[in-house]
Amino acid sequence: MDYGTTPLHGLPSRVTICEVGPRDGLQNEQAVLPVEVKAEFVARLVDAGHTLIETTSFVPAKWIPQLADAEELLDAITLAPGVRYPVLVPNERGLERALAAGVRDIAVFGSVTETFARRNLNRTVDESLAMFTPVVARAREAGLGVRGYLSMCFGDPWEGEVPVERVVEVATRMMALGCTQLSLGDTIGVATPGRVVAVLDALAAAGIPVDAIAVHFHDTYGQALANTFTALGHGVTTIDASAGGLGGCPYAGSATGNLATEDLLWHLHGLGIETGIDLQKMVDTSIWLAAKLGRPSPSRAVTALGDPLPR
Amino acid sequence: MDYGTTPLHGLPSRVTICEVGPRDGLQNEQAVLPVEVKAEFVARLVDAGHTLIETTSFVPAKWIPQLADAEELLDAITLAPGVRYPVLVPNERGLERALAAGVRDIAVFGSVTETFARRNLNRTVDESLAMFTPVVARAREAGLGVRGYLSMCFGDPWEGEVPVERVVEVATRMMALGCTQLSLGDTIGVATPGRVVAVLDALAAAGIPVDAIAVHFHDTYGQALANTFTALGHGVTTIDASAGGLGGCPYAGSATGNLATEDLLWHLHGLGIETGIDLQKMVDTSIWLAAKLGRPSPSRAVTALGDPLPR
Repeated sequence: MDYGTTPLHGLPSRVTICEVGPRDGLQNEQAVLPVEVKAEFVARLVDAGHTLIETTSFVPAKWIPQLADAEELLDAITLAPGVRYPVLVPNERGLERALAAGVRDIAVFGSVTETFARRNLNRTVDESLAMFTPVVARAREAGLGVRGYLSMCFGDPWEGEVPVERVVEVATRMMALGCTQLSLGDTIGVATPGRVVAVLDALAAAGIPVDAIAVHFHDTYGQALANTFTALGHGVTTIDASAGGLGGCPYAGSATGNLATEDLLWHLHGLGIETGIDLQKMVDTSIWLAAKLGRPSPSRAVTALGDPLPR
Repeated sequence: MDYGTTPLHGLPSRVTICEVGPRDGLQNEQAVLPVEVKAEFVARLVDAGHTLIETTSFVPAKWIPQLADAEELLDAITLAPGVRYPVLVPNERGLERALAAGVRDIAVFGSVTETFARRNLNRTVDESLAMFTPVVARAREAGLGVRGYLSMCFGDPWEGEVPVERVVEVATRMMALGCTQLSLGDTIGVATPGRVVAVLDALAAAGIPVDAIAVHFHDTYGQALANTFTALGHGVTTIDASAGGLGGCPYAGSATGNLATEDLLWHLHGLGIETGIDLQKMVDTSIWLAAKLGRPSPSRAVTALGDPLPR
């Protein structure tokens, strides 16, 4: 059924979705999927129209057993022209593995709060930035794109409210290292639109161009899409989302899944914003993957479009 | 944990939530609850701070067996000062029952589309407005407030896109009948913010004051809160929501629950918008009710705040 599109003044005409399901999503699922299933997942994402897919992680297998097969997965994927496949690397050893696998984009995962840096990275914020420095420098020398995750930008489960100045400080240092894009993470899903605007305005005032900003909202309290809509109205054109709402954060107890790609697509397409991605193919993929994971997708749109009722 | 509040320019400082859980919510649940449980539900809503609670329906019991105990429920409730308890009435017989029960606010349930009017009310739109005419007139003579529901304002599962002009026409006629408030229903949850703005702008241009408008979004595709945020930015200050996301629409196959009151409260309180309602009391109520209904709440905030993990 066609419900039409109604554009809204002040929003971008096109948005790039960074699909984080294969990495951020799967690393936080209980089930460990076979490499063939992961490769089919990535192939289905490409077939649906995705052009930016965070594919896996070179974090040591003892930390994230779900992604222990990073090399095999990259071997199993036929890289499509026009598609970028960033992989997460924690350190120089990870970068070497990524370069050996022929990857053209990496991501590093930082924190704006000290507590989360210590719990997730076992380092202070300063120490983690020091760890990233040679990684980003070498990656840029090799011509790679570098996505810098900033987690806990909108609240921290141990520290509570996170000062905007703290986000600006760490964001500025990450850009100075050479990151080509920053992904602002609401890792525990607590943000509301006023805080989103405050952070985006402060980053703009600090001279970080909005083109270098992505937003990464979790739907823990049901706020992810309203926050995304707010960011769109402030010029952000790269939105992180995960197929079917896969994922969360294993170090933050209260965190549930990422913004579901399908809920985001319904939103963007209703607003007449181009994504190049086929919603029904994504719904089919998330239903297929839910069966492999043995649990239903938490995405509202997947539930609605995937049920057998006529519409 | 306190994540702070960050107001946003252009939003109202205070919002009234119309809690529709006891009527719109429970009438669409499989389980039929005992009247004592319903009375406790309403008492808990009052205790949490609600002042506008759609309590039950005088629709014939053969249509909605879940609410067959309307008289007994109203007998069992101790009406609190400062709280309004609108009840749905379908016709003059329903109004007589409502008046006999001492109700001070009613609601009538209309449709902007012919297909839904026929399927839900077994009448054309004209015939349903003719049916409401004496009901609203008599209610207003008796000094009652009259809430007019307009369903399918943003899309219809059989007709698809609904022209904005059609919404304006039926809204204008409902106001002319004497309704004191219109609740614009996205009965199947398909709206996105551009459509919300188009409808609100068209109603304003037709001379319907925004103070007479409430919005009623369903979360079928995950859009309810983003649409609500959009409506807040356009001056709407009455928002329909249901405790724990109870409800849906039995006549529209694809419809899942209403916007959850708890997800809405997280949003409004994060923005510094007053509601007078205690979020944790609502979470506790929705968890209590979910046990009575035998299924978990679909609300994200209830899930996050109701789990036993520290935060």
